[in-house]
Amino acid sequence: MDGDQIIEKSTINKTACAYNAECPTRLVLNRIADKWTVLVMILLENDVKRFSQLRREIEGISQKMLTQTLRGLERDGLVTRKVYATVPPHVEYALTPLGHTLKDMLYAIKTWSETNIDSVLAAQKNYDAANK
Amino acid sequence: MDGDQIIEKSTINKTACAYNAECPTRLVLNRIADKWTVLVMILLENDVKRFSQLRREIEGISQKMLTQTLRGLERDGLVTRKVYATVPPHVEYALTPLGHTLKDMLYAIKTWSETNIDSVLAAQKNYDAANK
Repeated sequence: MDGDQIIEKSTINKTACAYNAECPTRLVLNRIADKWTVLVMILLENDVKRFSQLRREIEGISQKMLTQTLRGLERDGLVTRKVYATVPPHVEYALTPLGHTLKDMLYAIKTWSETNIDSVLAAQKNYDAANK
Repeated sequence: MDGDQIIEKSTINKTACAYNAECPTRLVLNRIADKWTVLVMILLENDVKRFSQLRREIEGISQKMLTQTLRGLERDGLVTRKVYATVPPHVEYALTPLGHTLKDMLYAIKTWSETNIDSVLAAQKNYDAANK
């Protein structure tokens, strides 16, 4: 995509669906523009994972928040949940084909964050000094 | 980026910064993986805007949430706030050069949402039918 195309598209879409509170696209945006979603889906990108593995690998996520995130992703058709009838039951999560289509975008978010952290921290320092 | 590169990178980064709760990259991810940030920044992509314009164009955002979102974006160095000494004061918001680097990613999020809404709604319907 080049810049001009993007600008033109934005002009056309200024009153488009995502800006309307009742539009279902807003619901999708709620899901994917979310920190926990990004972290969970990147971990599932290469491997099927168990709940306890995800919880261990995402520092700071609560059991409740991980449950909510996975349930929402399953409901949206982005993640599958497979239960094995063992004792105790073994539950595995994996991305669906639709979930895999989010890959490039999720990496772009993560990479931007990791690349630009220094600029952001410098800006925060300036802002805090100016707004004491 | 091709798929193999992404997979390799993910393997390397499995225990990388974003998964650590204390890492500052997580703070950046908190900001940009956020629904309101996506909507505000896309509107600022082509035009400088006043607070009241943003509020009008983003249906369903409260005054408080818009204020918080803009303040956070300003603190992170992604948006500038310019006050004109008129009566009443005229306040304009614009993207910084750092803010503009998020453009492609923000459009990717919005476009994915608008493109895949039908698949997501179908998945939700199936999920709700199976989990009554």
